[in-house]
Amino acid sequence: MANVEEAVDMVRGAQHPDGYLNSYYTVRGIDKRWTNLRDMHEMYCLGHLTEACVAYETLTGSGRLLEPVMKAIRHVDSIFGSEPGKKRGYPGHEEIEIGLLRLYELTGEPLLLKLAKYFIFERGQRDENGETFYDHEARARGADPYDHMGSEMKHCYLHPRDYGYQQADCPILEAKEVKGHSVRAMYYYTAAADLARLTDDKKLKEALDRLWRNMVDKKIYITGGLGSIRQWEGFGPEYLLGDSNEDGTCYAETCASFALIIWCQRMLRLSLNVEYADVMEVALYNAVLGAVSLDGGAFYYENPLRTYTGHQKERSKWFEVACCPPNVAKLFGLMGGLIYSSKKDVVAVHLYIESTFTVPGTDVVVSQKTSMPWSGEVEITVKGKTGLALRIPGWASSHECSVEGELKDGYLHLPPSEDTVVKLKLPLEARKFYANPKTGKDEIAIMRGPLVYCIEDVDNDVDVDDIALVDVSIKEAEPVSIAGVENVIPIMASGKELVQDTSSALYTSKPWNYSEGTKQLKFIPFFLRANRGGNGGMRVWNKRLQG
Amino acid sequence: MANVEEAVDMVRGAQHPDGYLNSYYTVRGIDKRWTNLRDMHEMYCLGHLTEACVAYETLTGSGRLLEPVMKAIRHVDSIFGSEPGKKRGYPGHEEIEIGLLRLYELTGEPLLLKLAKYFIFERGQRDENGETFYDHEARARGADPYDHMGSEMKHCYLHPRDYGYQQADCPILEAKEVKGHSVRAMYYYTAAADLARLTDDKKLKEALDRLWRNMVDKKIYITGGLGSIRQWEGFGPEYLLGDSNEDGTCYAETCASFALIIWCQRMLRLSLNVEYADVMEVALYNAVLGAVSLDGGAFYYENPLRTYTGHQKERSKWFEVACCPPNVAKLFGLMGGLIYSSKKDVVAVHLYIESTFTVPGTDVVVSQKTSMPWSGEVEITVKGKTGLALRIPGWASSHECSVEGELKDGYLHLPPSEDTVVKLKLPLEARKFYANPKTGKDEIAIMRGPLVYCIEDVDNDVDVDDIALVDVSIKEAEPVSIAGVENVIPIMASGKELVQDTSSALYTSKPWNYSEGTKQLKFIPFFLRANRGGNGGMRVWNKRLQG
Repeated sequence: MANVEEAVDMVRGAQHPDGYLNSYYTVRGIDKRWTNLRDMHEMYCLGHLTEACVAYETLTGSGRLLEPVMKAIRHVDSIFGSEPGKKRGYPGHEEIEIGLLRLYELTGEPLLLKLAKYFIFERGQRDENGETFYDHEARARGADPYDHMGSEMKHCYLHPRDYGYQQADCPILEAKEVKGHSVRAMYYYTAAADLARLTDDKKLKEALDRLWRNMVDKKIYITGGLGSIRQWEGFGPEYLLGDSNEDGTCYAETCASFALIIWCQRMLRLSLNVEYADVMEVALYNAVLGAVSLDGGAFYYENPLRTYTGHQKERSKWFEVACCPPNVAKLFGLMGGLIYSSKKDVVAVHLYIESTFTVPGTDVVVSQKTSMPWSGEVEITVKGKTGLALRIPGWASSHECSVEGELKDGYLHLPPSEDTVVKLKLPLEARKFYANPKTGKDEIAIMRGPLVYCIEDVDNDVDVDDIALVDVSIKEAEPVSIAGVENVIPIMASGKELVQDTSSALYTSKPWNYSEGTKQLKFIPFFLRANRGGNGGMRVWNKRLQG
Repeated sequence: MANVEEAVDMVRGAQHPDGYLNSYYTVRGIDKRWTNLRDMHEMYCLGHLTEACVAYETLTGSGRLLEPVMKAIRHVDSIFGSEPGKKRGYPGHEEIEIGLLRLYELTGEPLLLKLAKYFIFERGQRDENGETFYDHEARARGADPYDHMGSEMKHCYLHPRDYGYQQADCPILEAKEVKGHSVRAMYYYTAAADLARLTDDKKLKEALDRLWRNMVDKKIYITGGLGSIRQWEGFGPEYLLGDSNEDGTCYAETCASFALIIWCQRMLRLSLNVEYADVMEVALYNAVLGAVSLDGGAFYYENPLRTYTGHQKERSKWFEVACCPPNVAKLFGLMGGLIYSSKKDVVAVHLYIESTFTVPGTDVVVSQKTSMPWSGEVEITVKGKTGLALRIPGWASSHECSVEGELKDGYLHLPPSEDTVVKLKLPLEARKFYANPKTGKDEIAIMRGPLVYCIEDVDNDVDVDDIALVDVSIKEAEPVSIAGVENVIPIMASGKELVQDTSSALYTSKPWNYSEGTKQLKFIPFFLRANRGGNGGMRVWNKRLQG
């Protein structure tokens, strides 16, 4: 706590008299502040500070961080807004919107809601010439608006001046496609979901539903990874979902899936629908959990669905832009808010993870005993009186519950009851998945419950670059221990190996052939990959041979 | 010609007293000259001027351009070189090496050979700390050497400080892999091939042979396109050859194939082997010819092997970086030097294109009558006395020649003969091609002679995004006219259409299915694509169903 107070002192000391607070411009030239909202991170940093302020003030109530943060926000409000004389700017990297609304929920200060609303709706507005704030701002600082994101972008799906990279190609109420930098998009929609909830804005909710459908139906990896394009760390065209980051067609940044989880959490608050929790769970168990090594000491920035035999696949200890490790830590710190939510005497259970939850402001305690995702049995104990809304995951083909309830939008609603125990049973089955043909991917992926599986070189005496799965039934194997994780259930699938031609020619008149006989291939959960050495080969999707 | 003389006057007038010649730095601040060889184009521009000088002086012999060009080159030599006191720099974008050696061949001036040799061998040399000239140069101008090619490159196959982008990751004699920006690589190897020939450097030839094999066996498109990665307009990892530029996995820049053709021409001068001519011919008829619209007024900068239904695929009238249109014009201007070469009383015929060639410095004239690539009959008429070396293309399964000769490295050598007519017949057959399994591409492409074929939406009442070819025999159709081009021979192949599921889900438990019945699908030469409107769908490679 002394460290935190010291940091608060530093923040207080770094603030300019007018409220401005950003060490980069303080050091590098304060005269340049607020001249490049598009690329620089003044508001982004203030947004994170505002979120820190919410955490700090919730714990301490001292007001020592609230004071400089509110002063900084008032300074921002004095410069930006739709009122005459203010600049109609908005940040290139969303985040402040989340902070403003979280602090609004804590303090009820109307300025915070007003400013968040302004930023959320101003983004993507265009003047009578079709230009955005970023065009004007670039010219005002003597820059060419085209000088953005590298010249090669000019031939690209994302054009430097459409500002889709920043979700500023059009106002959110008109947006039909999730675009651009994935983390920015997720932070934006997270804040917009909070705003829709806090102001009961139906049109904004409709826009978010539309963007959600676009993402879930056309732009998400089966692992919950987001962003197929390395070049802008973000979304590609619809259905273009490559597997490898070696050719830049699968980025799946850890932070993007972290941010997706937060968006799911906010969508669940807006509307209790199992689809949000299904996506949240997939992203958590696959895209994010596997980004960290089992010893917790190394991280993936990118989480491709395929790595090649003989290529480097190790996680890194640190990154120059070290956003992912702290976001993972932040995520683990807020797990309670992902597993449970409460509203009007009902506790919703979104994830089945062994844990205990005290409903804020009450003595009601809900706890779970379960070994999910390895077995599908969950025991929920309620102390005190509450209703329950238990998620029946989309992956569960059926369910058994010891208490009768009403199923609505994938949640089993149980009537209020006191000091009770509920038993829930969900079948965890090995399942094959196929991608929509529009992806061009005629391949098979394997899941069991929320876990995506992959084949890894260390478990199989084949070159995983060169296998195909015969499209027949798959089966669970006996539980094993993998790199210290007990009770892991591998899945076995029939496969064939490519018969390698000895020719080194790139293009020949010889078609591909697979071996006559089949082999049993072993698949393990994707999140456990790359923890046991090996030669680098790993694949989630594998070619399909008709069975 | 008056325009040319006026341009020469302008060049002469723009030169600084010490010989420096580059209008960018003259206008933007001469004090900054020679501070950023890595990114800026001072030597690149001088290289093109030197090539222009060769053309101009060959035609006029006036010496009016030779004078300022030699003065500029002497200035470069005064600054750069391995002699004590000189900077050990070399250009970020190769080109001057080609100009220097061409001018050396015209004038015999030893300085030109010395300087070219220095630039070619100095590239990629490292000091005792493993650093290149570009590292030192960046620090000397107060820049961070890492600030190169965008920060996202740090997680990439090409690292900003390995300088593979500029082929400066290692000296050419140690290079094993073609890397980086494709045009730069091709210009470099073109000059190196000239140097190997002029100095009879066996080790340099070995290095070029190794790089050639790497490119041809692992990194070239079937169309002769080069460069799968948009982000650096260049080569990706081995065997990563995507088809679409929408996700940035197929760049195939027009200029890169132009430059490849030039490299092939130089390799043929170094060693008469049909493989160089085969690649040259494929690049010419497919990657380059198709980059231009049939009316000659619009261009592709990128030449992907697939465009999607409903997406824009039109050629452009002009580009901000307008390198491709003039390179295409330059190529058509030097066709004579691609079709023929002569050496020691032998005329080699590399391409079968109706044309006439006068052996330089003689009265010997070789001419061809042929309708290649539509029919494989060629009539070669020799006036005067010469031997002939007639290319037997790699795509020809046999050949018939009216004169007996000796076949060596794919060239049929005919003894010297006077005023004669030779008839050659090459079978043009429709052929199926498969990609090396290491590419991951279990698909079929179609060729006939040197022409790569594609399926285009306008010829077929199917969605070309959703077809697969049954792996049975293909056949030629009757000649047709396509957008004004007569006698085009389409190829018909059996295909099936994907049965579209009505589900919009991205991942489902339903496998792909193709229609029961087959359809005859029509393929046309790739170079004719996108000349007849249509909805945008085009594919060279199509999925394969076992026949």
